[in-house]
Amino acid sequence: MSRADRFLKACRGEETDCTPVWFMRQAGRYLPEYRAVRAKVPFLTLCKTPELAAEVTLQPVDILGVDAAILFSDILVVPEAMGMHLVLDDAGPQFTEPLRGPADGRRLRVPDPERELRYVLDAVRLARKQLAGKVPLIGFGGAPWTLAAYMIEGRTSRSFERAKAALLGDEAFAHELLSRISEALALYLQAQLDAGADAVQIFDSWAGALAPADYARLGAPYVARVVQGLRRERKQPVIVFGVETGELLGQLAATGADVVGVDWRVPLDEARERVGPAPALQGNLDPASLFLPAPALEKRVLRVLEEGRRAGGGHVFNLGHGILPSTPVENAKLAVELVHRGLPAR
Amino acid sequence: MSRADRFLKACRGEETDCTPVWFMRQAGRYLPEYRAVRAKVPFLTLCKTPELAAEVTLQPVDILGVDAAILFSDILVVPEAMGMHLVLDDAGPQFTEPLRGPADGRRLRVPDPERELRYVLDAVRLARKQLAGKVPLIGFGGAPWTLAAYMIEGRTSRSFERAKAALLGDEAFAHELLSRISEALALYLQAQLDAGADAVQIFDSWAGALAPADYARLGAPYVARVVQGLRRERKQPVIVFGVETGELLGQLAATGADVVGVDWRVPLDEARERVGPAPALQGNLDPASLFLPAPALEKRVLRVLEEGRRAGGGHVFNLGHGILPSTPVENAKLAVELVHRGLPAR
Repeated sequence: MSRADRFLKACRGEETDCTPVWFMRQAGRYLPEYRAVRAKVPFLTLCKTPELAAEVTLQPVDILGVDAAILFSDILVVPEAMGMHLVLDDAGPQFTEPLRGPADGRRLRVPDPERELRYVLDAVRLARKQLAGKVPLIGFGGAPWTLAAYMIEGRTSRSFERAKAALLGDEAFAHELLSRISEALALYLQAQLDAGADAVQIFDSWAGALAPADYARLGAPYVARVVQGLRRERKQPVIVFGVETGELLGQLAATGADVVGVDWRVPLDEARERVGPAPALQGNLDPASLFLPAPALEKRVLRVLEEGRRAGGGHVFNLGHGILPSTPVENAKLAVELVHRGLPAR
Repeated sequence: MSRADRFLKACRGEETDCTPVWFMRQAGRYLPEYRAVRAKVPFLTLCKTPELAAEVTLQPVDILGVDAAILFSDILVVPEAMGMHLVLDDAGPQFTEPLRGPADGRRLRVPDPERELRYVLDAVRLARKQLAGKVPLIGFGGAPWTLAAYMIEGRTSRSFERAKAALLGDEAFAHELLSRISEALALYLQAQLDAGADAVQIFDSWAGALAPADYARLGAPYVARVVQGLRRERKQPVIVFGVETGELLGQLAATGADVVGVDWRVPLDEARERVGPAPALQGNLDPASLFLPAPALEKRVLRVLEEGRRAGGGHVFNLGHGILPSTPVENAKLAVELVHRGLPAR
């Protein structure tokens, strides 16, 4: 089996020569090669310049030896294309005019990806061409709840009281806004698949801020609608991921996704109990483990592999959340090697 | 049964006339009366002036009608008394010289509470006297892992890679530091009990940042040591609480605490499965629910009461995390009334 096949086979629960591995945010700040590109342009310009986005997308494939590339982009380009005004400064991404109610929601467009998000699709096409089949390319988008929360809060939040009050307090608004975002997201992911993405990941980054009963209203149904609406002619897998989702894993599995991402709080064999037999699992090394000395890191990588083996049903090794900006590159490389080396023979 | 008894009885799993309720951070910024006091002095001065700390401790008892008062203070006064330099500015609390390794750890003192934290104990004595038996007074402290993480990171963090690398990468350092903090915490909580606190809560606020296997090394054993080391002549209950602890509830229960606090991510009846029959449960309304219109808020309060009834074994109603600074006071009052009114007769 070649490196090109491992990731997709594991997503489908098929046997692989070794466990495939990639890292969320693997194209990012911890890499000197990324920082060199980023020094030349602002973040959003990097997202919007296909040549540069493709360049940083490819960097970790050779530097780390991972088994998949993930498109360099940002989940917030979709709300921007829907009509929100996005700025990125030192305080992080911000919508300068957050949604204040149903009237604001109704002003949002459902963008035509090939027109308003063409730079993303051009980056997909370019990255895929440059990858030349070496490893698959993962596209992605933000889940409806996570994007809606961002659009209402205007920025990241610890407690999301504005978003929760707006969406849990007004069912009609919630349904209209989340439906509109779902429609935009489905078109966007479909366009990425059509442009050559070999898989897509839906980031429901803030799923875990919701109680299970609220995620059942605001989260899972809209993710399910997106997953089930995709035409996947090459059977491209769909991955769903969020953090702090211990109580939501069953709902994430029921969306119909092929792969459920798990953060480091839930051991993979325990996660298997909650998702049932169908989906493959992705995860779930604590990103902070990449700061430990090699023997401690090795122990932790082997523990995740062991739990993945016990879980069965397909395992894509990943971190439980994005790689941290100050991660030592040599430790990220070592983790990839350790995953490929696998568990000692029994 | 009087309002004075409800909270303590529920902590011990005994029958009560109605479910007792208090809110984490109930003495805080959402109250105009608190802001009026706070306008006069910096935060740390408020903590260190027993008359003012007692005054704000008592505010929510009459304003909201809650069934317990919780001492106004901050978990970081203990590391300060251990020798760390604490500053509080607009960026939040900070230790200006975070611990960098074992040598820094060895310089920490185990403070004599009646000497170096006397202002806290004076506030306990004063608040208890002013409460005059109306409702019990809860003292508190930060758990060893949470305090150690603060002391190493120097401030709040999203990912705690410094603290995790330091403590998971050097077992001897971890054990020495966590043991020293445990010793300080045990003396501190004992002194609060001796000064008249009717219960104590241990805040392991950052427990949920750790994978279960790591919490089993860095978290639970030290909490257990503190809980089991307390002399509780009046059988004062001990509560342990953290957020994102879904996978840690069993470990928290096994510390020997009388009450386990649960955040809003895990329904109380599900939490009961994980903690076993012994501890009472505290929680777990999503703090954002206090921003909803009255009918929606009522539905959510009733749901928590229903789940608490199904869980059995004692229920103290609380939020799943601290009350948010912009919470409308009238909604907090309404929630207290709704809890006291209870579930409709079956």
